[in-house]
Amino acid sequence: MTLRNLLNIKYPIIQAGMVWCSGWELAAASANTGILGVIGSGSMYPDILDHHIKKCQSLTKRPFGVNVPLLYPDLDQHVEVILKNNVKIVITSAGNPAQYTQILKSEGVTVLHVVSSTKFALKAEQVGVDAVIAEGFEAGGHNGREETTTLCLIPQVVAAVNIPVVAAGGIGSGKAMHAALSLGASGVQIGSRFVASKESSAHQLFKDLVVDSSEGDTVLTLKELAPVRLVKNDFYKKIEMLYHSKPTKRELYQLLGRGRAKKGMFEGDLINGELEIGQVSSGINEIKSTADIVKELVSEFNETQVKMAKIELPV
Amino acid sequence: MTLRNLLNIKYPIIQAGMVWCSGWELAAASANTGILGVIGSGSMYPDILDHHIKKCQSLTKRPFGVNVPLLYPDLDQHVEVILKNNVKIVITSAGNPAQYTQILKSEGVTVLHVVSSTKFALKAEQVGVDAVIAEGFEAGGHNGREETTTLCLIPQVVAAVNIPVVAAGGIGSGKAMHAALSLGASGVQIGSRFVASKESSAHQLFKDLVVDSSEGDTVLTLKELAPVRLVKNDFYKKIEMLYHSKPTKRELYQLLGRGRAKKGMFEGDLINGELEIGQVSSGINEIKSTADIVKELVSEFNETQVKMAKIELPV
Repeated sequence: MTLRNLLNIKYPIIQAGMVWCSGWELAAASANTGILGVIGSGSMYPDILDHHIKKCQSLTKRPFGVNVPLLYPDLDQHVEVILKNNVKIVITSAGNPAQYTQILKSEGVTVLHVVSSTKFALKAEQVGVDAVIAEGFEAGGHNGREETTTLCLIPQVVAAVNIPVVAAGGIGSGKAMHAALSLGASGVQIGSRFVASKESSAHQLFKDLVVDSSEGDTVLTLKELAPVRLVKNDFYKKIEMLYHSKPTKRELYQLLGRGRAKKGMFEGDLINGELEIGQVSSGINEIKSTADIVKELVSEFNETQVKMAKIELPV
Repeated sequence: MTLRNLLNIKYPIIQAGMVWCSGWELAAASANTGILGVIGSGSMYPDILDHHIKKCQSLTKRPFGVNVPLLYPDLDQHVEVILKNNVKIVITSAGNPAQYTQILKSEGVTVLHVVSSTKFALKAEQVGVDAVIAEGFEAGGHNGREETTTLCLIPQVVAAVNIPVVAAGGIGSGKAMHAALSLGASGVQIGSRFVASKESSAHQLFKDLVVDSSEGDTVLTLKELAPVRLVKNDFYKKIEMLYHSKPTKRELYQLLGRGRAKKGMFEGDLINGELEIGQVSSGINEIKSTADIVKELVSEFNETQVKMAKIELPV
């Protein structure tokens, strides 16, 4: 089963479902280009998710999915909204997929699960997910503790499981997509690049920051809670300072507080907000429409095909 | 100028010069397969280096190089030995290449410099190196502070400089080599895979550990001194424990002491030694001869070419 057949998409690309950045507008625009559009439900109450799904359905006839981080509250209600609206693809992340895979599969939903290690990929396969999304250390947002990079992770997961493996983390160009497929991935999931799209619901100031960012501007932190890659802004500097005093988990949670991600990514408070983005942001230099981004990914992939075909290693 | 022309090699592969693992035996075996063999001088006194170079020259007519970490003592004597023996390729790392590039170039030596960021790649180009080796976060041994992974680093360095870029970090297979070239690299440098070769001078116990290692078994640490990726063995656990007490640099140096790397990698003390290796070690499952490793790299690269050529993305 190829990823394109599994998801009924033209290109083996998934637009990552991201908190505060991927609502109906990005998901519908993505789906209409022939990739899988995904609504990120992690930042939505059930009624908001319901609204986004309905709006997306009104704008595209192509399939799209919903990302469900398994560490958030309202899980049962989210799943209810998804099933009620007849969404046929769900991507679970950040938690144990056993329970919800069973529920979703029994309703005919295709389930993909995000993992950061071969161990978790095998567990996900065991509970019956249709594909895994293997995400490397360089990815934005929540991430694994083992810090395995995409380049090291993908070949190992591919060797271990018998279901399609989607590569995520560090992929924002047709070249990187080509690299991921060379490693044996069946497709790619792209997040940061779509944060900097016209249709993303990220605040304009956050989009501008992504475009202006340089190598070394992000860091994987808060490993004691749930590791997350974010921009080293003033809020991060507070985390860093707190670390000097060997904080308890509770003190870290207190500093994090509530609504940090919304404040940063959605409301554009670049000083006090939490700004989740991947390392690849330093290579993103322009805000474009989702259609133009996908066109560019495909044409760069095809150019890379041509260039690579010319390389011959004598045996 | 292609990397193959620049270095006069058959395959665009550099066997990394590594402390305690790459002496004359590995360098000569590598050179004889058609890749660039490299002697790692970082663990050698000048007279030992002289011996290794002479021995290597007696075993191969092909070009080979010497790696010179710019943070070690005896630098001038090392360079003298290199020039006296008419070695024509030097790879500098871990320091500012300005001074030694000039000296070496004026003697007709081809100089490559290892970098971990685009900023340092541009500086190296500016001082006249012939190529840069861009090394990602996943690489073993000494590494950068910015933690940029190979997948994110290579396209950016390639876009920034006008000299060949060699990809390093996370590359131990033909697939990964294909991925690196897709990203725009002119070639690859491979370390960990050659540690687990028959000809490497690593202790047998260390080779066995590399072959047995799993995802998450290495970590980038000692960032206050010079960041280094090593195995999380008992010695590392002592570092970790020391970190709980907010150590000074001096205390870290004291714990590190002298001869840790030799003890671990060369003498096989897996408990008290420092064991430098890359993340890719978890994907290395057998100790093979250098000739067989290179054969496998080339055939897997060519298989990946064929497989990738079949993928077509409709425009």
